[in-house]
Amino acid sequence: MPVTINCDMGESFGAYTMGNDSAVLDFVNSANVACGYHAGDPGIMRQTVRLARAAGVSVGAHPGFPDLAGFGRRNMAATPREVEDFVLYQIGALAAIASAEGVTLRHVKPHGALYNMAIRDRALSDAIAAAIASFDRSLILFALPGTELMNAGKAAGLQVAAEGFADRSYEADGSLTPRTRSGAVIHNADEAIGRAIRMARDGVVRAVNGSDIPMRVDTICTHGDTPGSNELTRQLRAALEAAGIEVKPIGPRRTTDA
Amino acid sequence: MPVTINCDMGESFGAYTMGNDSAVLDFVNSANVACGYHAGDPGIMRQTVRLARAAGVSVGAHPGFPDLAGFGRRNMAATPREVEDFVLYQIGALAAIASAEGVTLRHVKPHGALYNMAIRDRALSDAIAAAIASFDRSLILFALPGTELMNAGKAAGLQVAAEGFADRSYEADGSLTPRTRSGAVIHNADEAIGRAIRMARDGVVRAVNGSDIPMRVDTICTHGDTPGSNELTRQLRAALEAAGIEVKPIGPRRTTDA
Amino acid sequence: MPVTINCDMGESFGAYTMGNDSAVLDFVNSANVACGYHAGDPGIMRQTVRLARAAGVSVGAHPGFPDLAGFGRRNMAATPREVEDFVLYQIGALAAIASAEGVTLRHVKPHGALYNMAIRDRALSDAIAAAIASFDRSLILFALPGTELMNAGKAAGLQVAAEGFADRSYEADGSLTPRTRSGAVIHNADEAIGRAIRMARDGVVRAVNGSDIPMRVDTICTHGDTPGSNELTRQLRAALEAAGIEVKPIGPRRTTDA
Amino acid sequence: MPVTINCDMGESFGAYTMGNDSAVLDFVNSANVACGYHAGDPGIMRQTVRLARAAGVSVGAHPGFPDLAGFGRRNMAATPREVEDFVLYQIGALAAIASAEGVTLRHVKPHGALYNMAIRDRALSDAIAAAIASFDRSLILFALPGTELMNAGKAAGLQVAAEGFADRSYEADGSLTPRTRSGAVIHNADEAIGRAIRMARDGVVRAVNGSDIPMRVDTICTHGDTPGSNELTRQLRAALEAAGIEVKPIGPRRTTDA
Repeated sequence: MPVTINCDMGESFGAYTMGNDSAVLDFVNSANVACGYHAGDPGIMRQTVRLARAAGVSVGAHPGFPDLAGFGRRNMAATPREVEDFVLYQIGALAAIASAEGVTLRHVKPHGALYNMAIRDRALSDAIAAAIASFDRSLILFALPGTELMNAGKAAGLQVAAEGFADRSYEADGSLTPRTRSGAVIHNADEAIGRAIRMARDGVVRAVNGSDIPMRVDTICTHGDTPGSNELTRQLRAALEAAGIEVKPIGPRRTTDA
Repeated sequence: MPVTINCDMGESFGAYTMGNDSAVLDFVNSANVACGYHAGDPGIMRQTVRLARAAGVSVGAHPGFPDLAGFGRRNMAATPREVEDFVLYQIGALAAIASAEGVTLRHVKPHGALYNMAIRDRALSDAIAAAIASFDRSLILFALPGTELMNAGKAAGLQVAAEGFADRSYEADGSLTPRTRSGAVIHNADEAIGRAIRMARDGVVRAVNGSDIPMRVDTICTHGDTPGSNELTRQLRAALEAAGIEVKPIGPRRTTDA
Repeated sequence: MPVTINCDMGESFGAYTMGNDSAVLDFVNSANVACGYHAGDPGIMRQTVRLARAAGVSVGAHPGFPDLAGFGRRNMAATPREVEDFVLYQIGALAAIASAEGVTLRHVKPHGALYNMAIRDRALSDAIAAAIASFDRSLILFALPGTELMNAGKAAGLQVAAEGFADRSYEADGSLTPRTRSGAVIHNADEAIGRAIRMARDGVVRAVNGSDIPMRVDTICTHGDTPGSNELTRQLRAALEAAGIEVKPIGPRRTTDA
Repeated sequence: MPVTINCDMGESFGAYTMGNDSAVLDFVNSANVACGYHAGDPGIMRQTVRLARAAGVSVGAHPGFPDLAGFGRRNMAATPREVEDFVLYQIGALAAIASAEGVTLRHVKPHGALYNMAIRDRALSDAIAAAIASFDRSLILFALPGTELMNAGKAAGLQVAAEGFADRSYEADGSLTPRTRSGAVIHNADEAIGRAIRMARDGVVRAVNGSDIPMRVDTICTHGDTPGSNELTRQLRAALEAAGIEVKPIGPRRTTDA
């Protein structure tokens, strides 16, 4: 089974730079591009689409909460109706800019607090899935497996991609260990890479209680906004390939969409 | 020659209401819908598209400067590149929401200070025209005749609609009298309507120096954000029809786009 | 025991108008002035301070979440540290504008979701109280009695004013019935006024379970952003005075602050 | 004559970092702290005040246009009334946060486009000076000598500090060479430092036409937002001191304010 490496990108804003997109693009397959709500602006979006196109990387939308000051990481009590409308707004805005650069969006991955709230809240997830489906039913939704977001995507008839996190620990029920708990983030690069290989090749991950749990993934999330992240991503890709796992863009698009 | 009545709409924001869109929609043909920069938000945009669809009114994008506090009425020294990107962003966002409601955008009319700066600045106008053309070449650009915005639209191969303002006085060269000068706005409803009829039927308007100047128009702009504006719009439409002028949505789309 | 009538004000923004501040000012004692985060802008703030000064109404700060699109009514997972800093920012901004108009701030009342979250969350309430205390220890904190916000204000050494809501129903434990439940808002004006009189004169209110519970209040909140609200406020004031209750600005300032 | 080195600071925002404030603080005397409009947020403001206090550096307000996307560098057609109100708002917000940290503001320096527009526009400069004077008449206004901003500060009775730019070229009339012209920015560090010394010690600067013009300065502006800027600032300070120029905070405050 092939696997895709995805990374959040285009999270700079105006005079502010976040991450090192061009360096990371050499190693990933799917760029989740911020759409101007939690990060990004129209100029950054265009520049990011161009960089991704030049690197042969698929482009997806990375919609977030309208909270630039909090980088979209703060939970907000937006209604499902509000979420559906602003996710659709963000997807449409990015799609227009991508189209002007000859690029078609391939996937959608909600950002930060929106992702985290949605995986536990079916109404929010249904709103996100409805926004995607009303825009383009062939867009692939990236979601944590076994969550409401995954369920909502399937129920809306969307193609979904199960996402794994190399540097996060998992509970026995398959959920991510909350960041507030110690051990939630795996800082050791070799360990993180080893876990990614197990998920991609064997469909399992070691949970915090020491048991192996099923965790079949289509895509591995990496990060581009921390120092050294491009080197980590390079190593991750090399290790996956060395383990015999094919690393390539997700797809092809479902024949039912052709 | 038929004429279209257009009106800015969807300029409410969150808990704030601007104008009386549903009342004015009974009398206009084209709604210029704000896109979240100078006014409007995703929920208001969807609601406005629904109202317009129900009233049989064409929907267009009304992009503006990113200046909610100034309602897009303050000149900003944005670069042509910035303008192209944020106009495209706004068109794409509205188009996605409209599409989810089964509505296709028909036209684009820049808002406020963006419109006023563009009519005198070819680089800004080229940026606006490029954004439109890269999104959908069949979108009609509404512009003051004889201006750089009109020129840029034609040069970009766009269909353009010459716009007349019933309640504004004109200089001998066809430009609008600046609002800072007395007499710039015509407050007498009968006079405004009379001027609209002359533009639509005869292709002339009386300039401030007393001479009649050519002013052939495809669309008349009315306003929905002032008390009594829906009554004025009703009278305008009735008077145009009583004068034998066909009032109808602009188009059809060019056969070269079919 | 005298009582103060307070009202949220200055919640217009740019070209958008909210409420009818000048009409309501004739009947209230304390204006809670929005500070530019959930509503208001520097120009509106100055205009509101002037109106309040002319009406002899005390001015207080009405800080809210940074959520103009949601009018500060959506819960946000801001940290206590973030809350302390942005409450202080808002108080300082309003105090500077008020001072330029010769007006000293007298009180602080958090807005909307910030108020609602704080009354249940001691850490947030401590952050709000710390912001107030670090700015001016003589500022009076308006808070629902028996809540964490009230407790935090007292613990910080602030003078607190117990706030009652004429048009909201109360649970047996003294908390407000959540708006999501039917009967949470009392729409009958006579009933609302009657409840305000009982709170102000007798220190009791009838809870939803039919029992009378203690509810001693120093200030009654009225609303200015709905049609007819100024008439309701006029009636409220007249009824309180007819019932022998003195309606006057809160104070005097504590002698320890002199 | 002593000279003060000033630097823009606190221009990070939320998750975004701008410059290296703590490194530059070792070498400057006055920190111009962004106030949340063009950059900065309440948390960044507090952190910057703390760093400045720990470094023994004076704190001033650095108000800008409400244009985070453009970092306050785009001209905006705000009215003098709008400018007065939002400058006062920003000063008050920072002063409150500074006061909570035991720090009193010492100066005000407008940012970016606001500074550049004001030096040529007396009405804008009067608005800025009025905002400062209404807040605290002992605040020192930093301004380019011979400009409307300097004139307005003096006319409002403010103490003013003449500001020199080491890395900018000057026209024969004492104005800065526009950035759009080649040679406007002096990239050679030794040359920039040499020019700063001549301004501080001799009160002259070599203009672009080759002539020496009078340019007596009280404060030299350095930049902290470019790579290597802290090293440049260290060299600048060392060179000034080696040339026998006393480098120290501006002041003392006028005895009439004591």
